Amino acid sequence: MDKFTMEEAKSHRVGPDFRIADVDPTSTPGFEWDKEAWEREFHEHDEELDELQEKLFANGRAEVPGTGGLLLILQGMDTSGKGGVVRHVFRAFDPQALKIATFGPPTAEERRHDFLWRVRPQEPAIGQIAIFDRSHYEDVLVQRVRKMAPAEEIERRYGRIVEYERELAERNIRIIKVMLHISEDFQKENLIERLEDPAKHWKYNPGDLDDRELWDEYMEAYEIALRRTSTDFAPWYCIPGDRKKYARMAVKYLVLDALRSMNLEWPAADFDVEAELERARKA
Amino acid sequence: MDKFTMEEAKSHRVGPDFRIADVDPTSTPGFEWDKEAWEREFHEHDEELDELQEKLFANGRAEVPGTGGLLLILQGMDTSGKGGVVRHVFRAFDPQALKIATFGPPTAEERRHDFLWRVRPQEPAIGQIAIFDRSHYEDVLVQRVRKMAPAEEIERRYGRIVEYERELAERNIRIIKVMLHISEDFQKENLIERLEDPAKHWKYNPGDLDDRELWDEYMEAYEIALRRTSTDFAPWYCIPGDRKKYARMAVKYLVLDALRSMNLEWPAADFDVEAELERARKA
Repeated sequence: MDKFTMEEAKSHRVGPDFRIADVDPTSTPGFEWDKEAWEREFHEHDEELDELQEKLFANGRAEVPGTGGLLLILQGMDTSGKGGVVRHVFRAFDPQALKIATFGPPTAEERRHDFLWRVRPQEPAIGQIAIFDRSHYEDVLVQRVRKMAPAEEIERRYGRIVEYERELAERNIRIIKVMLHISEDFQKENLIERLEDPAKHWKYNPGDLDDRELWDEYMEAYEIALRRTSTDFAPWYCIPGDRKKYARMAVKYLVLDALRSMNLEWPAADFDVEAELERARKA
Repeated sequence: MDKFTMEEAKSHRVGPDFRIADVDPTSTPGFEWDKEAWEREFHEHDEELDELQEKLFANGRAEVPGTGGLLLILQGMDTSGKGGVVRHVFRAFDPQALKIATFGPPTAEERRHDFLWRVRPQEPAIGQIAIFDRSHYEDVLVQRVRKMAPAEEIERRYGRIVEYERELAERNIRIIKVMLHISEDFQKENLIERLEDPAKHWKYNPGDLDDRELWDEYMEAYEIALRRTSTDFAPWYCIPGDRKKYARMAVKYLVLDALRSMNLEWPAADFDVEAELERARKA
C-alpha cells in the first residue's frame, strides 16, 4: 500500500542552501508510482478539505476577528502544469471561496507603477483562498533573465517581496509558494503535443521557444529567487513536475496542511439561538 | 428510464403572462423523482460542458473577435439554494474560467452611485462565466418591498435593467436569469435546520425572519420584476426550488444550452504551426 504523507509533501521545502540542480524533475519522492494508490491518496482528504474550506469561508463571512486567508503562488516554466493544478486540485473546492489571478506581461499602465501595484488588489480577502498563476515573482524571474529592469531594481525587489509577504502573514494569510519544476525534455514533449493538437494551439506562443533557449538563465533566476525569499511565513516548495499527478498531489497536501494549521472552528452565533428557534417555529 | 430534457429545463421560461402562483415550488416537471436517474442525468453532459467551457475560455484568451461570455443571475428568497447551485453545478467547471460575485446590501459608497455602478465591474470578461449570487434585481425586489427607494426610481430601474442587459447581449454575453422559487414551508424547514446546526449558524440572520413576514410582498415584487425584464436576450426562468437537486439540474441544462448556442470552435493558430513544430523538435 503506497501512502503519501504530509512529511513528503513538506520535504520539498526550499532552505537556505537550496540548489535547483539537486531536484530531479522526473522523481516522485515518497510515492512509488501506482495509479490506484494515487487516486485514493489524492482524494483521501476531500471531505476534510471541504469542511476546512467552508469553515474558513464562514469565518470570513462572519468577520470573525483574526480570520485570515490562504494564498497559493504557482510558478514554473511554460507547460509546467500550473493550470492543471488549479483545475484538478481546486475543483474539490467551493468556487465561491476561490479567487484566481493570472499575471501576464504587465500592461502599459502597470509598468508605470511599482511592481506590487497590480498584485495588492488580488490579495485574498478574509475567508478567501487566492491562487496566483504566476505572480510578483515574474518581476525577478523573466525580468531578471531578459534584463527588463536594472540590476539594482531587481535587487531591491527581493527585499520588497519578503516584506510584502510578511505583511500578508501578519494578517493571518497563510502563504504557500510552489515552483513546478519540470525538465527540458518534458517541456519539449509538451510543446510538441500542443502544436500537434489543434485544440491546444491557443495555449502555444512562439515566445515559449525563445524562453527555452534561456533555460539555464531561468534556472539560475529561480534558484536565487527561491533561496532569497523562502521564509518561515512564506516558504517555497520546489516540486518535481514531470509527473503532473504527483505535483498535483503534493500541492493538495500542502493546501490541506495550511488549512489545518488555521485551527478553524465554526463561527459562534451572534444572536440568541433559542429565541430565534422559537420565532422560526412560529413564523 | 427517467430522462430530463432541455425542453423541460426551458419550460420554466417566464413569458409576458407569467404568474408566480402558477409555479408549484414542490413540483419537478419533466422528472419523476428517482435518485439514480438524477445522478445520471445530472452528470450526463459533464464532458461536453467541460469542452464547451474550455473552448469559451480559449476564445477569450486568444481574443477571438466576437467572443462573448456567459452571465448567470441567481435570485431567490433566503435558503432557496443559490449557494448550492454555485457549488454543485459549477464544480464541474475549471475555476479559472469562473467569476462569482455576491451582492449584499449596498455599502455607503455604493448607495451614493447609480444602482448599476457596482454591477458593471463584475461583468464577465470575454471567455468568462460570471455568476451573480443576487444582483441588480435586489434593487427592484428588497428595495421595492422595503420602500428603500422612491416609487419613480424603482419604476425607472426596470427600464435601465432591460437596457443594460441588452448592452451585454450586444457584446455576445449570454444571459440566464434564474429565480429559485421555494415555498414558505420549505423555507421554514431550512431556517429551523440552520438554527439547529451550529455549523450553519453563520448562514443565519435574524433579518431572514423579518423578510419572511413580507413573503407575499416579495412574491409580488418578483412577479413584476420577472414579467417586466424577461426578454429574448435575457430570459428569466422561474424554477421550482423545494427539490434542490431538481433545481440544480435545471440550471445545469440551461447553462449547457447557452454554451451550445455559442457555436464555439477552437481558436485558429495565429502562427505557422508547421514552422513552429520544426523549431520545437530542434529546440
